[in-house]
Amino acid sequence: MLVGDALQPLAFQLLASDPALPAAPAVRVRLVEILAHAAGSLGMAGGQAIDLAAQGKRLPIDEVELMHARKTGALIQASVLLAAACVPDLPPAQHQALEGFAVPIGLAFQIQDDLLDVLGDTQTLGKTAGADSERGKPTHPAVIGIAASQERVRLLHAQALASLAPFGGRAAPLSLLADWLLSRRY
Amino acid sequence: MLVGDALQPLAFQLLASDPALPAAPAVRVRLVEILAHAAGSLGMAGGQAIDLAAQGKRLPIDEVELMHARKTGALIQASVLLAAACVPDLPPAQHQALEGFAVPIGLAFQIQDDLLDVLGDTQTLGKTAGADSERGKPTHPAVIGIAASQERVRLLHAQALASLAPFGGRAAPLSLLADWLLSRRY
Repeated sequence: MLVGDALQPLAFQLLASDPALPAAPAVRVRLVEILAHAAGSLGMAGGQAIDLAAQGKRLPIDEVELMHARKTGALIQASVLLAAACVPDLPPAQHQALEGFAVPIGLAFQIQDDLLDVLGDTQTLGKTAGADSERGKPTHPAVIGIAASQERVRLLHAQALASLAPFGGRAAPLSLLADWLLSRRY
Repeated sequence: MLVGDALQPLAFQLLASDPALPAAPAVRVRLVEILAHAAGSLGMAGGQAIDLAAQGKRLPIDEVELMHARKTGALIQASVLLAAACVPDLPPAQHQALEGFAVPIGLAFQIQDDLLDVLGDTQTLGKTAGADSERGKPTHPAVIGIAASQERVRLLHAQALASLAPFGGRAAPLSLLADWLLSRRY
Protein backbone atom coordinates (compact mmCIF):
# COMPACT_ATOMS: atom_id res chain seq x y z
CA MET A 1 0.00 0.00 0.00
CA LEU A 2 2.86 2.33 0.80
CA VAL A 3 4.35 1.72 -2.65
CA GLY A 4 0.98 2.76 -4.11
CA ASP A 5 1.10 5.91 -1.98
CA ALA A 6 4.52 6.65 -3.48
CA LEU A 7 3.58 5.78 -7.09
CA GLN A 8 0.55 8.04 -7.14
CA PRO A 9 2.52 11.29 -6.66
CA LEU A 10 5.11 9.98 -9.14
CA ALA A 11 2.39 9.91 -11.82
CA PHE A 12 1.53 13.57 -11.12
CA GLN A 13 5.21 14.49 -10.99
CA LEU A 14 5.77 12.99 -14.46
CA LEU A 15 2.77 14.82 -15.91
CA ALA A 16 4.02 18.07 -14.38
CA SER A 17 7.66 17.85 -15.29
CA ASP A 18 8.78 14.89 -17.44
CA PRO A 19 10.80 16.46 -20.29
CA ALA A 20 9.84 13.50 -22.54
CA LEU A 21 6.30 14.87 -22.59
CA PRO A 22 6.06 17.56 -25.30
CA ALA A 23 3.51 19.70 -23.47
CA ALA A 24 3.26 23.37 -22.52
CA PRO A 25 2.49 24.26 -18.88
CA ALA A 26 -1.21 24.92 -19.66
CA VAL A 27 -1.45 21.42 -21.17
CA ARG A 28 0.39 19.83 -18.23
CA VAL A 29 -2.06 21.45 -15.81
CA ARG A 30 -4.92 19.93 -17.82
CA LEU A 31 -3.20 16.50 -17.69
CA VAL A 32 -2.93 16.70 -13.90
CA GLU A 33 -6.64 17.59 -13.72
CA ILE A 34 -7.63 14.66 -15.93
CA LEU A 35 -5.63 12.12 -13.92
CA ALA A 36 -6.70 13.57 -10.56
CA HIS A 37 -10.36 13.38 -11.55
CA ALA A 38 -9.97 9.79 -12.80
CA ALA A 39 -8.13 8.64 -9.65
CA GLY A 40 -10.19 10.40 -6.99
CA SER A 41 -13.59 10.20 -5.34
CA LEU A 42 -15.41 10.56 -8.68
CA GLY A 43 -13.12 7.95 -10.28
CA MET A 44 -11.12 4.96 -9.16
CA ALA A 45 -11.19 5.54 -5.38
CA GLY A 46 -14.95 6.32 -5.46
CA GLY A 47 -15.64 3.22 -7.56
CA GLN A 48 -13.66 1.09 -5.15
CA ALA A 49 -15.72 2.51 -2.27
CA ILE A 50 -18.95 1.52 -4.08
CA ASP A 51 -17.42 -1.91 -4.69
CA LEU A 52 -16.56 -2.44 -1.01
CA ALA A 53 -20.00 -1.25 0.11
CA ALA A 54 -21.73 -3.52 -2.43
CA GLN A 55 -20.15 -6.84 -1.49
CA GLY A 56 -22.81 -9.34 -0.53
CA LYS A 57 -25.59 -7.05 -1.81
CA ARG A 58 -27.72 -7.23 -4.94
CA LEU A 59 -27.26 -4.21 -7.20
CA PRO A 60 -29.27 -3.43 -10.33
CA ILE A 61 -27.13 -3.71 -13.44
CA ASP A 62 -27.03 0.06 -14.05
CA GLU A 63 -25.46 0.57 -10.60
CA VAL A 64 -22.94 -2.19 -11.35
CA GLU A 65 -22.05 -0.30 -14.53
CA LEU A 66 -21.75 3.00 -12.64
CA MET A 67 -19.33 1.29 -10.23
CA HIS A 68 -17.26 -0.07 -13.16
CA ALA A 69 -17.33 3.28 -14.94
CA ARG A 70 -15.57 4.77 -11.93
CA LYS A 71 -13.41 1.95 -10.66
CA THR A 72 -11.66 0.83 -13.86
CA GLY A 73 -13.44 2.81 -16.57
CA ALA A 74 -12.26 6.21 -15.37
CA LEU A 75 -8.56 5.33 -15.59
CA ILE A 76 -8.89 3.60 -18.99
CA GLN A 77 -10.79 6.63 -20.23
CA ALA A 78 -8.11 8.91 -18.75
CA SER A 79 -5.35 7.04 -20.61
CA VAL A 80 -7.07 8.07 -23.86
CA LEU A 81 -8.04 11.58 -22.74
CA LEU A 82 -4.49 12.32 -21.51
CA ALA A 83 -3.14 11.58 -24.98
CA ALA A 84 -5.93 13.62 -26.58
CA ALA A 85 -5.19 16.57 -24.29
CA CYS A 86 -1.60 16.63 -25.59
CA VAL A 87 -3.05 17.81 -28.93
CA PRO A 88 -4.57 21.15 -27.86
CA ASP A 89 -5.91 21.92 -31.34
CA LEU A 90 -7.69 18.56 -31.72
CA PRO A 91 -11.09 19.23 -33.35
CA PRO A 92 -13.95 18.71 -30.83
CA ALA A 93 -15.51 16.01 -33.06
CA GLN A 94 -12.29 13.97 -32.90
CA HIS A 95 -12.08 14.46 -29.14
CA GLN A 96 -15.65 13.15 -28.84
CA ALA A 97 -14.80 10.20 -31.09
CA LEU A 98 -11.89 9.26 -28.82
CA GLU A 99 -14.11 9.55 -25.75
CA GLY A 100 -16.71 7.43 -27.56
CA PHE A 101 -14.00 4.81 -27.96
CA ALA A 102 -12.63 4.98 -24.42
CA VAL A 103 -15.86 4.79 -22.41
CA PRO A 104 -17.24 1.52 -23.85
CA ILE A 105 -13.78 -0.07 -23.91
CA GLY A 106 -13.35 0.72 -20.21
CA LEU A 107 -16.62 -0.98 -19.34
CA ALA A 108 -16.07 -3.91 -21.72
CA PHE A 109 -12.63 -4.48 -20.16
CA GLN A 110 -14.19 -4.79 -16.71
CA ILE A 111 -17.01 -7.12 -17.81
CA GLN A 112 -14.41 -9.29 -19.58
CA ASP A 113 -12.42 -9.30 -16.33
CA ASP A 114 -15.46 -10.53 -14.43
CA LEU A 115 -16.19 -13.16 -17.10
CA LEU A 116 -12.60 -14.44 -16.80
CA ASP A 117 -13.09 -14.72 -13.05
CA VAL A 118 -15.97 -17.12 -13.74
CA LEU A 119 -14.68 -18.91 -16.86
CA GLY A 120 -10.89 -18.79 -16.47
CA ASP A 121 -8.60 -20.99 -14.44
CA THR A 122 -6.32 -19.73 -11.69
CA GLN A 123 -3.09 -20.74 -13.47
CA THR A 124 -3.83 -18.89 -16.72
CA LEU A 125 -5.29 -15.85 -14.92
CA GLY A 126 -2.35 -15.48 -12.55
CA LYS A 127 -4.89 -14.73 -9.81
CA THR A 128 -7.50 -16.83 -8.02
CA ALA A 129 -10.44 -17.65 -10.30
CA GLY A 130 -13.86 -17.48 -8.68
CA ALA A 131 -12.76 -14.83 -6.16
CA ASP A 132 -15.64 -12.48 -7.09
CA SER A 133 -18.48 -14.91 -6.37
CA GLU A 134 -16.60 -16.05 -3.27
CA ARG A 135 -16.84 -12.44 -2.01
CA GLY A 136 -20.42 -12.00 -3.18
CA LYS A 137 -19.43 -9.21 -5.59
CA PRO A 138 -22.20 -7.92 -7.85
CA THR A 139 -20.69 -8.45 -11.32
CA HIS A 140 -22.27 -8.71 -14.76
CA PRO A 141 -22.06 -12.53 -14.82
CA ALA A 142 -23.65 -12.64 -11.35
CA VAL A 143 -26.42 -10.15 -12.16
CA ILE A 144 -27.34 -10.81 -15.82
CA GLY A 145 -25.64 -14.18 -16.48
CA ILE A 146 -22.71 -15.29 -18.64
CA ALA A 147 -24.33 -15.24 -22.09
CA ALA A 148 -25.83 -11.75 -21.64
CA SER A 149 -22.48 -10.50 -20.29
CA GLN A 150 -20.64 -11.84 -23.34
CA GLU A 151 -23.20 -10.18 -25.61
CA ARG A 152 -22.73 -6.88 -23.72
CA VAL A 153 -18.96 -7.09 -24.25
CA ARG A 154 -19.48 -7.71 -28.01
CA LEU A 155 -21.82 -4.72 -28.31
CA LEU A 156 -19.53 -2.38 -26.35
CA HIS A 157 -16.55 -3.50 -28.46
CA ALA A 158 -18.47 -2.81 -31.69
CA GLN A 159 -19.59 0.57 -30.33
CA ALA A 160 -15.98 1.48 -29.48
CA LEU A 161 -14.70 0.51 -32.93
CA ALA A 162 -17.51 2.44 -34.62
CA SER A 163 -16.40 5.56 -32.76
CA LEU A 164 -12.95 5.23 -34.33
CA ALA A 165 -14.37 5.23 -37.89
CA PRO A 166 -13.65 8.94 -38.57
CA PHE A 167 -9.91 8.28 -38.05
CA GLY A 168 -9.73 5.51 -40.70
CA GLY A 169 -6.50 3.51 -40.75
CA ARG A 170 -4.79 5.94 -38.36
CA ALA A 171 -6.78 4.34 -35.51
CA ALA A 172 -5.40 0.84 -36.17
CA PRO A 173 -3.29 0.80 -32.94
CA LEU A 174 -6.38 1.65 -30.85
CA SER A 175 -8.59 -0.95 -32.53
CA LEU A 176 -5.88 -3.60 -32.13
CA LEU A 177 -5.63 -2.69 -28.45
CA ALA A 178 -9.41 -3.03 -28.12
CA ASP A 179 -9.31 -6.44 -29.80
CA TRP A 180 -6.55 -7.61 -27.49
CA LEU A 181 -8.23 -6.31 -24.32
CA LEU A 182 -11.39 -8.24 -25.11
CA SER A 183 -9.87 -11.46 -26.45
CA ARG A 184 -7.43 -11.80 -23.55
CA ARG A 185 -7.49 -14.91 -21.40
CA TYR A 186 -5.65 -13.42 -18.43
CA MET B 1 -7.07 4.19 3.50
CA LEU B 2 -9.41 4.55 0.53
CA VAL B 3 -10.29 8.07 1.69
CA GLY B 4 -6.57 8.85 1.66
CA ASP B 5 -6.34 7.49 -1.87
CA ALA B 6 -9.15 9.87 -2.84
CA LEU B 7 -7.77 12.90 -0.97
CA GLN B 8 -4.34 12.66 -2.55
CA PRO B 9 -5.56 13.31 -6.13
CA LEU B 10 -7.86 16.03 -4.76
CA ALA B 11 -4.79 17.92 -3.54
CA PHE B 12 -3.23 17.77 -7.03
CA GLN B 13 -6.54 18.70 -8.63
CA LEU B 14 -6.79 21.84 -6.47
CA LEU B 15 -3.22 22.86 -7.29
CA ALA B 16 -3.92 22.34 -10.99
CA SER B 17 -7.29 24.02 -11.25
CA ASP B 18 -8.64 25.75 -8.13
CA PRO B 19 -9.67 29.25 -9.30
CA ALA B 20 -9.05 30.58 -5.77
CA LEU B 21 -5.33 30.06 -6.39
CA PRO B 22 -3.95 33.09 -8.25
CA ALA B 23 -1.35 31.18 -10.25
CA ALA B 24 -0.42 30.95 -13.92
CA PRO B 25 -0.16 27.46 -15.51
CA ALA B 26 3.65 27.48 -15.25
CA VAL B 27 3.35 28.16 -11.50
CA ARG B 28 0.68 25.49 -11.05
CA VAL B 29 2.95 22.93 -12.73
CA ARG B 30 5.67 23.86 -10.25
CA LEU B 31 3.21 23.48 -7.34
CA VAL B 32 2.29 19.97 -8.50
CA GLU B 33 5.98 19.10 -8.69
CA ILE B 34 6.66 20.40 -5.17
CA LEU B 35 3.78 18.46 -3.62
CA ALA B 36 4.50 15.28 -5.62
CA HIS B 37 8.14 15.34 -4.49
CA ALA B 38 7.14 15.91 -0.85
CA ALA B 39 4.53 13.12 -0.86
CA GLY B 40 6.41 10.45 -2.79
CA SER B 41 9.29 8.06 -2.36
CA LEU B 42 11.72 10.88 -1.54
CA GLY B 43 9.24 12.43 0.89
CA MET B 44 6.39 11.23 3.10
CA ALA B 45 5.92 7.74 1.64
CA GLY B 46 9.68 7.09 1.63
CA GLY B 47 10.00 8.32 5.22
CA GLN B 48 7.16 6.07 6.29
CA ALA B 49 8.94 3.13 4.63
CA ILE B 50 12.10 3.89 6.63
CA ASP B 51 9.94 4.19 9.75
CA LEU B 52 8.32 0.77 9.19
CA ALA B 53 11.68 -0.85 8.46
CA ALA B 54 13.25 0.73 11.55
CA GLN B 55 10.80 -0.46 14.20
CA GLY B 56 12.56 -2.49 16.85
CA LYS B 57 15.99 -1.47 15.49
CA ARG B 58 18.57 0.94 16.83
CA LEU B 59 19.25 3.80 14.44
CA PRO B 60 21.95 6.45 14.84
CA ILE B 61 20.42 9.88 15.45
CA ASP B 62 21.31 11.20 11.99
CA GLU B 63 19.30 8.40 10.38
CA VAL B 64 16.38 9.16 12.69
CA GLU B 65 16.58 12.76 11.49
CA LEU B 66 16.71 11.68 7.83
CA MET B 67 13.56 9.63 8.42
CA HIS B 68 11.80 12.63 10.02
CA ALA B 69 13.00 14.97 7.27
CA ARG B 70 11.12 12.80 4.79
CA LYS B 71 8.16 11.55 6.75
CA THR B 72 6.82 14.76 8.25
CA GLY B 73 9.48 17.34 7.38
CA ALA B 74 8.94 17.14 3.62
CA LEU B 75 5.25 18.05 3.80
CA ILE B 76 5.77 20.85 6.34
CA GLN B 77 8.55 22.20 4.11
CA ALA B 78 6.26 21.85 1.07
CA SER B 79 3.54 23.90 2.78
CA VAL B 80 6.01 26.79 2.92
CA LEU B 81 7.58 26.18 -0.52
CA LEU B 82 4.14 25.99 -2.19
CA ALA B 83 3.32 29.46 -0.90
CA ALA B 84 6.77 30.73 -1.93
CA ALA B 85 6.35 29.31 -5.44
CA CYS B 86 3.17 31.40 -5.86
CA VAL B 87 5.45 34.46 -5.89
CA PRO B 88 7.49 33.75 -9.02
CA ASP B 89 9.60 36.91 -8.66
CA LEU B 90 10.55 36.18 -5.04
CA PRO B 91 14.24 37.08 -4.62
CA PRO B 92 16.38 33.91 -4.20
CA ALA B 93 17.63 35.13 -0.80
CA GLN B 94 14.07 35.34 0.49
CA HIS B 95 13.28 31.90 -0.93
CA GLN B 96 16.31 30.54 0.93
CA ALA B 97 15.22 32.30 4.12
CA LEU B 98 11.78 30.63 3.91
CA GLU B 99 13.40 27.25 3.31
CA GLY B 100 15.73 27.94 6.26
CA PHE B 101 12.59 28.45 8.35
CA ALA B 102 10.66 25.42 7.07
CA VAL B 103 13.33 22.73 7.39
CA PRO B 104 14.14 23.14 11.12
CA ILE B 105 10.46 23.69 11.98
CA GLY B 106 9.56 20.41 10.25
CA LEU B 107 12.12 18.50 12.28
CA ALA B 108 11.32 20.32 15.53
CA PHE B 109 7.62 19.53 15.05
CA GLN B 110 8.39 15.81 14.82
CA ILE B 111 10.73 15.75 17.83
CA GLN B 112 8.07 17.61 19.82
CA ASP B 113 5.58 14.98 18.69
CA ASP B 114 7.85 12.23 19.97
CA LEU B 115 8.41 14.09 23.26
CA LEU B 116 4.63 14.39 23.72
CA ASP B 117 4.34 10.65 23.18
CA VAL B 118 6.67 10.17 26.18
CA LEU B 119 5.58 13.10 28.39
CA GLY B 120 1.92 13.62 27.47
CA ASP B 121 -1.14 11.77 28.64
CA THR B 122 -3.54 9.94 26.36
CA GLN B 123 -6.53 12.18 27.13
CA THR B 124 -4.78 15.45 26.30
CA LEU B 125 -3.02 14.01 23.25
CA GLY B 126 -6.15 12.51 21.77
CA LYS B 127 -4.08 9.45 20.87
CA THR B 128 -2.41 6.75 22.91
CA ALA B 129 0.63 8.05 24.81
CA GLY B 130 3.63 5.75 24.89
CA ALA B 131 2.74 4.14 21.55
CA ASP B 132 6.20 4.81 20.08
CA SER B 133 8.21 2.98 22.76
CA GLU B 134 5.56 0.22 22.71
CA ARG B 135 6.42 -0.32 19.03
CA GLY B 136 10.16 0.07 19.56
CA LYS B 137 10.32 3.14 17.32
CA PRO B 138 13.67 4.90 17.16
CA THR B 139 12.75 8.45 18.22
CA HIS B 140 14.82 11.31 19.60
CA PRO B 141 13.74 10.66 23.20
CA ALA B 142 14.60 6.96 22.77
CA VAL B 143 17.97 7.58 21.13
CA ILE B 144 19.35 10.74 22.82
CA GLY B 145 17.06 11.08 25.87
CA ILE B 146 14.41 13.61 26.89
CA ALA B 147 16.59 16.53 27.97
CA ALA B 148 18.77 16.42 24.85
CA SER B 149 15.64 16.17 22.69
CA GLN B 150 14.12 19.25 24.34
CA GLU B 151 17.37 21.12 23.81
CA ARG B 152 17.37 20.09 20.12
CA VAL B 153 13.82 21.44 19.74
CA ARG B 154 14.86 24.75 21.32
CA LEU B 155 17.85 25.07 18.98
CA LEU B 156 15.86 24.22 15.85
CA HIS B 157 13.15 26.69 16.86
CA ALA B 158 15.72 29.44 17.35
CA GLN B 159 17.35 28.57 14.02
CA ALA B 160 13.97 28.77 12.26
CA LEU B 161 13.15 32.17 13.78
CA ALA B 162 16.61 33.50 12.89
CA SER B 163 15.93 32.60 9.25
CA LEU B 164 12.87 34.85 9.28
CA ALA B 165 14.88 37.89 10.42
CA PRO B 166 15.20 39.44 6.91
CA PHE B 167 11.38 39.70 6.71
CA GLY B 168 11.04 41.71 9.94
CA GLY B 169 7.48 42.13 11.24
CA ARG B 170 5.99 40.72 8.03
CA ALA B 171 6.99 37.24 9.23
CA ALA B 172 4.96 37.50 12.47
CA PRO B 173 2.34 34.91 11.32
CA LEU B 174 5.09 32.39 10.61
CA SER B 175 6.90 32.95 13.90
CA LEU B 176 3.60 32.68 15.82
CA LEU B 177 2.92 29.41 14.00
CA ALA B 178 6.37 28.14 14.96
CA ASP B 179 5.79 29.10 18.61
CA TRP B 180 2.45 27.30 18.64
CA LEU B 181 3.77 24.16 16.96
CA LEU B 182 6.46 23.80 19.59
CA SER B 183 4.49 24.80 22.70
CA ARG B 184 1.59 22.52 21.86
CA ARG B 185 0.49 19.85 24.32
CA TYR B 186 -1.47 17.75 21.80
